[in-house]
Amino acid sequence: MKKNCIVGQSGGPTAAINASLAGVYTGAKACGAPHVYGMRYGIEGLLAGNTVDLDAVFGAENGEGERSIALLRRTPSSFLGSCRCKLPAQDAADAAATYDAVFARLESLDIGAFFYIGGNDSMDTIDKLSRWGARINSSIRFVGVPKTIDNDLAMTDHTPGYGSAAKFIAASISEMLCDATVYEVPSVTVVEIMGRDAGWLAGAAALAGAAGGPAPDLVLLPEAPFDEAAFLARLRALLAEKNGLLVAVSEGVRTADGTLLCEMADSGVQQDAFGHRAFLSGAGSWLSGRIREALGCKSRAVELSILQRCASHLASAADLAQAERAGFAAAQAADSGESGCMIAFTREMDADGAPVFGTKTVPIAKVANAVRSVPRAWITPDGMNVTQEFIGYALPLIQGELDAFWENGVPQHLHL
Amino acid sequence: MKKNCIVGQSGGPTAAINASLAGVYTGAKACGAPHVYGMRYGIEGLLAGNTVDLDAVFGAENGEGERSIALLRRTPSSFLGSCRCKLPAQDAADAAATYDAVFARLESLDIGAFFYIGGNDSMDTIDKLSRWGARINSSIRFVGVPKTIDNDLAMTDHTPGYGSAAKFIAASISEMLCDATVYEVPSVTVVEIMGRDAGWLAGAAALAGAAGGPAPDLVLLPEAPFDEAAFLARLRALLAEKNGLLVAVSEGVRTADGTLLCEMADSGVQQDAFGHRAFLSGAGSWLSGRIREALGCKSRAVELSILQRCASHLASAADLAQAERAGFAAAQAADSGESGCMIAFTREMDADGAPVFGTKTVPIAKVANAVRSVPRAWITPDGMNVTQEFIGYALPLIQGELDAFWENGVPQHLHL
Repeated sequence: MKKNCIVGQSGGPTAAINASLAGVYTGAKACGAPHVYGMRYGIEGLLAGNTVDLDAVFGAENGEGERSIALLRRTPSSFLGSCRCKLPAQDAADAAATYDAVFARLESLDIGAFFYIGGNDSMDTIDKLSRWGARINSSIRFVGVPKTIDNDLAMTDHTPGYGSAAKFIAASISEMLCDATVYEVPSVTVVEIMGRDAGWLAGAAALAGAAGGPAPDLVLLPEAPFDEAAFLARLRALLAEKNGLLVAVSEGVRTADGTLLCEMADSGVQQDAFGHRAFLSGAGSWLSGRIREALGCKSRAVELSILQRCASHLASAADLAQAERAGFAAAQAADSGESGCMIAFTREMDADGAPVFGTKTVPIAKVANAVRSVPRAWITPDGMNVTQEFIGYALPLIQGELDAFWENGVPQHLHL
Repeated sequence: MKKNCIVGQSGGPTAAINASLAGVYTGAKACGAPHVYGMRYGIEGLLAGNTVDLDAVFGAENGEGERSIALLRRTPSSFLGSCRCKLPAQDAADAAATYDAVFARLESLDIGAFFYIGGNDSMDTIDKLSRWGARINSSIRFVGVPKTIDNDLAMTDHTPGYGSAAKFIAASISEMLCDATVYEVPSVTVVEIMGRDAGWLAGAAALAGAAGGPAPDLVLLPEAPFDEAAFLARLRALLAEKNGLLVAVSEGVRTADGTLLCEMADSGVQQDAFGHRAFLSGAGSWLSGRIREALGCKSRAVELSILQRCASHLASAADLAQAERAGFAAAQAADSGESGCMIAFTREMDADGAPVFGTKTVPIAKVANAVRSVPRAWITPDGMNVTQEFIGYALPLIQGELDAFWENGVPQHLHL
């Protein structure tokens, strides 16, 4: 790669997005890029001229590069900052002004390849930039690196960031199950888990049992319509057998007519720039209130909130390694001339039935703005748990631990 | 010790209470106790005849004891189960019936020493039992082992359970600080932390900066009355300088007239059997709403909820070691004839200014039902942060990590 590269991070933070940044950086350098720039706050920073030279940031010239990269892997959230910016449609009135500004910035930095690490909306950005680039005969290559804790990107076996969030969820719920059963009184702990439209994260609650201990009693996913009568009847039957139940519920669970539980909770649903409901909250506390009313037992709601996307100290080593590999593969893809694509993961089984993961590139247009749901067959017929197929799928993604760099009893992170 | 021992756990769970159970068990065995019994669900289980022989539970005779104890140390919450049971006053009408039943159970198991691991209310139980024992000339010894994440027990430098909760809070906030600053827009993340009457836990948020990274911008404790105008003015000034603020707030924060923020949130305040407000919630979301209204910026509330008391995977090794030591010391104290006392921690400084912790016994009557607050001098004059003295006090308590026993990517725990 004779020209420079630029990389940005976009959308919600994860514990693995910085491992992908490490992968893009080391991959681009390995491919010979003279400079690798970072956009501060995604495409918004690029438009504002807010970029940094990553060699300087990581102290590569001072021999600090290796330590910086190791710390970057252990740093949650988006090291470069993020944004939720939607580029205009190609035929919008303001399209030319925006795209011309982007390409002028890229030309001024002598950029040959542009990498964007993110989810659905970030892939929409890659899609639009690569199409505009083709229209103006730009030689700049645009490659997407997948990232989302939601695991709902199309065309890939899984998405980096999911495994670490899933590990946090599984480990925390295994601990909360010890807490939930501590008093000899009937009670239901309801744990609310992220996942706007897909139940991959909520399903990870079932992995809590993977070490041989208990698992949640019920797991509710957006893919299976919520039936209040059936749900309460099921809890009643379970409470006849034991105290201290635990229910995992996705923030995106809805009834058959599409009403979100959190809408019933009247807790406010905020929209982001993409018209998505950006901030759902309240499904757990609504359920918990219904349980107290209908069953007359103790119930408490716990929201895992942003902890599930930023708990680097509990990241999955497998996830971080794959996140970094995706970044490296993106640099290689651009170097070999690919553009308008995203790095995706494949999964094959070896002779022992163990999964072997690979990477490939997929056309970005097939990824942008699509959503991959949990297959109905991976949810139990009653809609209140996941099957062994789900567990077999998710378990390899939460394997391994990467020790934090502890100082004074607190994990260290890399800050820009 | 020629007679048997019995041990119970009471009150809210912590990540360290099982290390104290390990200490009592190994201490009692080291002192020669033929049997060590465990009460299921505290004193309520004892009254119901629900006890277990811990040699059998830990598999000590099968050579599994060491592994069981190692796993017990890594298991959060109360392994034996817990209760919130208040024994009657000595002069109450039902007193004799209750106390006679307790002592009859103890005599039937040939108990020489009774250990109760818990907080204020559990020490009230030890106080009442030892006084009743004296009244009936019982030879049974009653010793309390301190436990509470709140760190508010009197007569001791600190309380086991606090260090692990404080480490979880500090580490999680160091990660949330990465998340809170990710977008280039003014925003305030409000993190609600447990601590009914004392701000030790909320103050631990300030330890997030101990590894050299950022710390919360403001830390609000129950000990400093909340002044809304001053608080909002301070945030306004901070937002003029930077985006992405983080405020840590104790669930017990109140205004000068004693009104809890969570009462203003109208989120329901439940009382427990001791007449305490057992379940405060909503201070963070109330503050967050006020910030949005008054400052017009993004704000989100995060409740650390029960995670802060059960996150064993992030326990402080120093805390677990001290919790176990307190249990062992309790067995030794009973063996040497002490009763009606609690194990307390002392702190002295060595020649290098490093803290050296010791244990001693303190009269239980001085502990029961008292509360130890954060000294006003350890809170900044404006009441919105803690001082270096607080940090110097708390930091030694969060040192060290104890690796979980991982299996299939999830921590293992010991279940009864």
